[in-house]
Order: sequence, then structure tokens, then C-alpha cells
Amino acid sequence: MPNYDLLITNATLLANTVDGDLQESAYLAVLDGAIAGIGAMADLPARLGAERIIDAAGNLLMPGLINCHGHGAMTLFRGLADDLPLMTWLTEHIFPAEARLVEAEMVYWCSKLAAAEMIMGGTTTLADAYFYEAAAAKAFCEAGLRTVAAQGIIDFPAPGVPDPAQNIAAAADFLSSWQGKNPLLTPALFCHSPYTCRPETLQRAKELAREAGSLFFIHLAETREEVAQLRKQHGCTPVALLQALGVLDKNTICVHCIWLEEGDIGLLRESGAKVVTCPESAMKLGAGIAPLGELLAAGVAVGLGTDGCASNNDLDLFQEMASCARLHKVAGLDPTILPAGALLGMATGAGARVLGLAGQTGRLAVGLRADCIIIDGRQPHLTPFHNPATLVYAGRGSDVVTVLIDGQVVMRDRQLLSFDLGETMGEVRRLAGRVRAGE
Amino acid sequence: MPNYDLLITNATLLANTVDGDLQESAYLAVLDGAIAGIGAMADLPARLGAERIIDAAGNLLMPGLINCHGHGAMTLFRGLADDLPLMTWLTEHIFPAEARLVEAEMVYWCSKLAAAEMIMGGTTTLADAYFYEAAAAKAFCEAGLRTVAAQGIIDFPAPGVPDPAQNIAAAADFLSSWQGKNPLLTPALFCHSPYTCRPETLQRAKELAREAGSLFFIHLAETREEVAQLRKQHGCTPVALLQALGVLDKNTICVHCIWLEEGDIGLLRESGAKVVTCPESAMKLGAGIAPLGELLAAGVAVGLGTDGCASNNDLDLFQEMASCARLHKVAGLDPTILPAGALLGMATGAGARVLGLAGQTGRLAVGLRADCIIIDGRQPHLTPFHNPATLVYAGRGSDVVTVLIDGQVVMRDRQLLSFDLGETMGEVRRLAGRVRAGE
Repeated sequence: MPNYDLLITNATLLANTVDGDLQESAYLAVLDGAIAGIGAMADLPARLGAERIIDAAGNLLMPGLINCHGHGAMTLFRGLADDLPLMTWLTEHIFPAEARLVEAEMVYWCSKLAAAEMIMGGTTTLADAYFYEAAAAKAFCEAGLRTVAAQGIIDFPAPGVPDPAQNIAAAADFLSSWQGKNPLLTPALFCHSPYTCRPETLQRAKELAREAGSLFFIHLAETREEVAQLRKQHGCTPVALLQALGVLDKNTICVHCIWLEEGDIGLLRESGAKVVTCPESAMKLGAGIAPLGELLAAGVAVGLGTDGCASNNDLDLFQEMASCARLHKVAGLDPTILPAGALLGMATGAGARVLGLAGQTGRLAVGLRADCIIIDGRQPHLTPFHNPATLVYAGRGSDVVTVLIDGQVVMRDRQLLSFDLGETMGEVRRLAGRVRAGE
Repeated sequence: MPNYDLLITNATLLANTVDGDLQESAYLAVLDGAIAGIGAMADLPARLGAERIIDAAGNLLMPGLINCHGHGAMTLFRGLADDLPLMTWLTEHIFPAEARLVEAEMVYWCSKLAAAEMIMGGTTTLADAYFYEAAAAKAFCEAGLRTVAAQGIIDFPAPGVPDPAQNIAAAADFLSSWQGKNPLLTPALFCHSPYTCRPETLQRAKELAREAGSLFFIHLAETREEVAQLRKQHGCTPVALLQALGVLDKNTICVHCIWLEEGDIGLLRESGAKVVTCPESAMKLGAGIAPLGELLAAGVAVGLGTDGCASNNDLDLFQEMASCARLHKVAGLDPTILPAGALLGMATGAGARVLGLAGQTGRLAVGLRADCIIIDGRQPHLTPFHNPATLVYAGRGSDVVTVLIDGQVVMRDRQLLSFDLGETMGEVRRLAGRVRAGE
């Protein structure tokens, strides 16, 4: 009689991404969506069995990756407007396209495409932030992706919230509709930035988040222009502004934090606020290089994000790890900066801590939810495989063959199982025709 | 009766990578290894046929990529020693491992693995540089990869050339053995650097290259330390030293050129020397950021290279294009720097010009050799596909499904056809065991 729902056997195991030790010939057992056993095949009692067995011989088993910041629905705008000055890109291309095209149906299908891309690239948890976030949440739940879904708040007419005076009420509706609704989904709030949200909006949103026990995301200190503008308006840095408004605490997640000034890192550390870095987006937009070494040295929890497809343009966290490591090494002219283990940690355990999900995911250990990925280690570009750093510097999302989220096999042998990918790509292509027709 | 050896039909064609125009529903015809026809399906006379037809409906057809600098055999050292200071990495790990392990058999198998990785990533031409280059040349020819193979020259005991006094003679042997031997292979010379080759060696090697009409490769101005050392020894920059020695001309290919000083770019331009940039390697080693914008603005021909697997750690030119664009945008805090088309050009046509192969490859046009790749455009991370920039910012080597080199189908539907990949990976794994045993 089976003891487990699912058993992964004969894997090369990377259970803890930070120390980087590989365990040959390991198993992982799943029961009721959780990890019920993990260890050496030799220690797996012969009498134990499972409904379903996945033989991972020759392959690597590791925790699923955690994307701490994205705008899933922006897959529609992938490659719409590249290589342009940031404000031209934003105000002449992205904002107009969003105003014209973003509606619940678009968010649903384009978020679902993002879910497919992420699952097929080994991401098992996403922190999403967009408008019509209820449609996004529906898509991610159907995809079987673990998600922190944050409803966007901005003091301009926004998709789904034409009257900015209603933005907090709309966010409150989103929180109350989704709290406790699906075990995979945690609702949250996303204030776009301190230059698009008034101080009162930031405070009211944070108050709402506190009442609901929710995370509060915000784009912060992304460009020099933003810092200059806020200094002119408020006489302080973006981080100091959040602190002065009482918005900075351990449930506040500051995305980007590129242009930090003296005192900012101290404020982040003391408040317990978290940081998410999105290096490929910041590189492509020419936004700048975050002081990641200083943030990590100060003990600030830092997660890794892809940002949206309009500025990245993909959602591959393997390549994001490599880009992050390489960028900071060359910026500091020091190859010892951000070793591979630090990146693997950011993309797994540290990401889980940033999102308040460390009790559920980010490592492979008994009792945690079974969020794990199997990587084909027998490919030319991963041969030889001297150590896990190879995953960072030579791995890519397409090396992932099988993905479990919450114990469910959502991809097997590169076949997405949780929904109809062809239908989703067809719907997104139809919507993309409307994008081009309006250009 | 067939008119062509092979016909690719119904492709979305990107014939010229620089202007970026896509042509829907196109064909490409191959006869005797060359492109015999290219254009709209509607213009393909119905009576024409081919021995073999590849239907590329839904897929993208473009020129194969050109890797202008690599050390193929160093696949063995992939991930051997990451995140270390450059000189520690080189002198304590790479040089000792090379001294212990590099022999003809190792170079043969590890170059073959590199060929597999490159072909499977859409690279159809490689400029390789290593020791035992005859073994590398044999591997690349068997793999069906178009190759400029350069025999290494260094004023230290080297693999295959224990007595440095014989390094020019060994290189001369290599040139004479391989000239005219295989239409895919062009032999050349590779002086490791001006800090490992004496001035006399550089001059004698260049003289030999001139006599043979061969390309002369050299690592140049890669680190600040190199520049400081040469200034101390010779009172000038690395570029100026080559100029003073009479080594700089249109057949000299300077790899890296990161730390250029005033006057260097002028010397490169006036001499007609070429430059190869390897951004991922330079980033990971913390070497620095080449002044690519200034080089291109001066009209210097610049190709793109991966460098070897000990410092990259993969041979994926798609990711190299993205890294190159992103790095220079963030370094200049300007997203308009190096637009996607510039990268596609560097990785194809400009690369061919750098290697003196523009009459054979780098574009898809009648009369050129049939070096082309078919990309699966129906994947989530390439959907939607608004324009070819998506290949740069979201594409990766694993998107390539079919590869033709010199008209031969060397990969079809991700299956490598030109040699036994399993055998090669097995041999490299066996050699990798010896690497670890010696650590």
C-alpha cells in the first residue's frame, strides 16, 4: 500500500542552495502537497512506496525558484518598445498601450502566459504586481503557481480603476476577496512608486495592508530622476520619505533600490524592510546598479525579480542569477563579489523570506510544501558538472524538465500539465495583433 | 526532378540581421552547400523541388551566429573554479589543470563537446584558439562546424609544445598541415598575450601569419594589471606596443580591448585591426567594460565572442548578445546604447567580417554558403514576437531547433546529427573525473 502520493527517486539533490553541497542518489517523498521525506535512497525503507514515482536518475533536484517581483500581464508588451530612453519608453509606449489594452481578459491571458513561461523556467513562486489583479490571481491559481498577488495603486486613472479616488477601495476589495480563498495565493498591495502615489495614498495603502496583515510592495529609488524629483518635492530620499510617512516596516518590500544615499541602507535595515533587485530590467533600461553588496552586508533581506516583460524581456530566473552575479562583479572589478551560492540563495531561501513564505517554500525539507524542480543535467552546456555554480553561470530555464508546486506536477518532461498552453498562446497572439494595430 | 539539395519553406525570414525586417512566408534553397535561392514562397516556381524539404512554418529562419573567440577544449574546466580573483583563478587553478590534463585526446573530446554546445545554440562559425589545435581542428571538422582554428603560442612550456623555443615552428607546422585541407576550416595563429609572449615572439608569429596569409589573434588589454605591467616594461599601452612591433594590421584580431587609453582606438582604426568583445567572461572575471560604443563609433570592426567555458561558463551567443547590450546600457546609464539590431549584426555579419569570412557567411543571400538556423518561435518566452529584438532580449540557444552549416543539416529538431553526442559527453565526463581527482 502506498505511503506517499509521489516519490522522486535517484536524484542528485541540492536541498540547501546556499552551502551548495550535492547529495548523490537521493529521494524526495510527497504527501498531501508537503515534503514528507527526503534523504539518501539507501535510507528509503524498501516497504515504502507511492502512487506515482518519478525517476530522476542523472538529473538534479532542487527547490523551485522564487521570483520576487514581476508584472505577469506585461508579457503582451514583450519587445514592444526596446532600446528607448526610459521616460519615452514609459510615457509614449507602455502607458498608452496599457491605457488602450489592459482589461480583465488581457490580464488573465497574459498572466497565464507568464505563468507558463515561469513554470517552464523553474519558477514555482511569483510576487506579481499589476492592475486587474483579481484576473491575474485567477490565472496564477489555475496555473498552479504559488503567488503573492498585489493589486496596483496609482494616483492616475488606471486600468480597472478609472477614478484614482477609488484606488484604495479597489485594493481593499481585492484583499478581502482573495484572503483565504486559495492556499497557493496570498493577496497583497502594490503602490506603483512615491512619484506616482501621493503621500496620503501611500499612508492609506500601508494602513490597509497593516489591517489585513498583507505585504506592501513599492518601486523605489529606481532612477536618478526619481530621487532628484522627490528631493525637490519632499527634501529627502525616497527611502527617507517612506520612513517619514511611517510606511517602512518588515512587511514593506522596496523594489529596485538602485540610487540609495547615505542613511538609506540604515533605514532599510532598522525597519526590517525587504529589497528586491531586478538586474536585467535595470540594465536594459539603463537605470543603474543597485548597491547590492552593501545591502547584503548590512543584513537587509534581498530577493531577486525579473520585473515585467516590457523591460527584461523574459522571466528566466536562471539567467537573472547569472546577470546579477556578473553585473556586480564587473561593477566592482572583483570576481569574488556575489559568488554563485549567494545567487542560488537569493533565488530560493532568501526570496521566500522576503515574501514571508519561508515556512512554506525556498528549501527542500520535511514539512515544507513540495515546491521543487528537476533539471536535466545531461546536456552539453551543463557538462561536466563540477559543482552547483554551473547552474548559475551556465544554466537556463529551459534546462528544467519537471516542476512540482505544492506537490502537484505542473510540468513533466517539458510538457506543461496544469493548463492548455496552446490556447493561452493563441489568445495572447490575438491580443498582440491589437497591440500592433494601434502602433 | 529536384533542382535543389534542400529547401526550407514557409519560414519567417530574417535575412539581414541589421535592418531587422522580417519577411513572412519565405523559402531558402540550398545547392552544393550554397544558398541557391531565397525569397517569398509566392515567388518559388511550382516546378522547382528538392531532395529534402524542411517546413519551417511558424518558425524563424536567420543566419547562423558567429563566435569570434573561444577556447573550445576548456569545456572541461566549466565550473572548475568560479568566483575567484583573476590571477588566483588563472595561476592556481586553470594553468595547473591545463598543465596536468591538456593533451591531444582531451582537446579532441572537449572541443567536440564545445562544438555540440555551439551548434545546439545556433552558432555556425567559431574562431577557436588553444593548444593541440590540430586535435581541435579535427573535432570541429567532424562536427561540421565552420571554424577558424588558431594554434596557441606562448613563451612558457605549453601543452604539446614543452620547449617554448619551438612554439613558432609548431605553429608553422599547424598552418601548413591544415591549409586547404577542409573547406570548413581556416588555420590561424593565436599569441596568448603581450605579457606571456616576448616582442620577438609576437613579431615572428606575425611574420609567419603574413607569409601564410593567416589571421593573428591575441588577448589584449584585458586587465588594468596587464596595462600597468606593459607600461612599466615597454613604456606604452598594449595596443601601442603591437603597433610599434609592426604586428597591428587588418589581419590582427585583438580580443578584449577593455582598458584602452587615449590614442589606442585611433591605432586600431588606422591599422584596420579587428576587435572581439567577450562581455560575459569580462563581467564574471571582473575584468572590466570595453569602450564598445567608442570602438564602433570609430568604425572599428567588432565581433562577439564567448571566450572559454572556464570564465563564461557557457557558449551561448544569444545570451551573450543580451548581456552585451544590457551591460553597455547600464554602464552608460542610457538604454539607447547598443540597440538589439547592433547586437544581431555583431553576432552575424560583423563577426564574419572580423574573421574574413564575409564572402561565405554572416548573411543569407544567394551565393553565400548555407549557414542558417531555424528558431522555434512558438514558445511562451518568445510570445508575442513583435520584432527581432525579442531574439536578443528573450532568446536563448535552446530555442534553435535546426541548424545548417555549409548546407549540411547538423542539427534537426534539437537532435545533433553530425556526430555521436552521447559518446562525446561520456568521454568528457571520464576526463572530468580526472580533473576532480587532482583537485
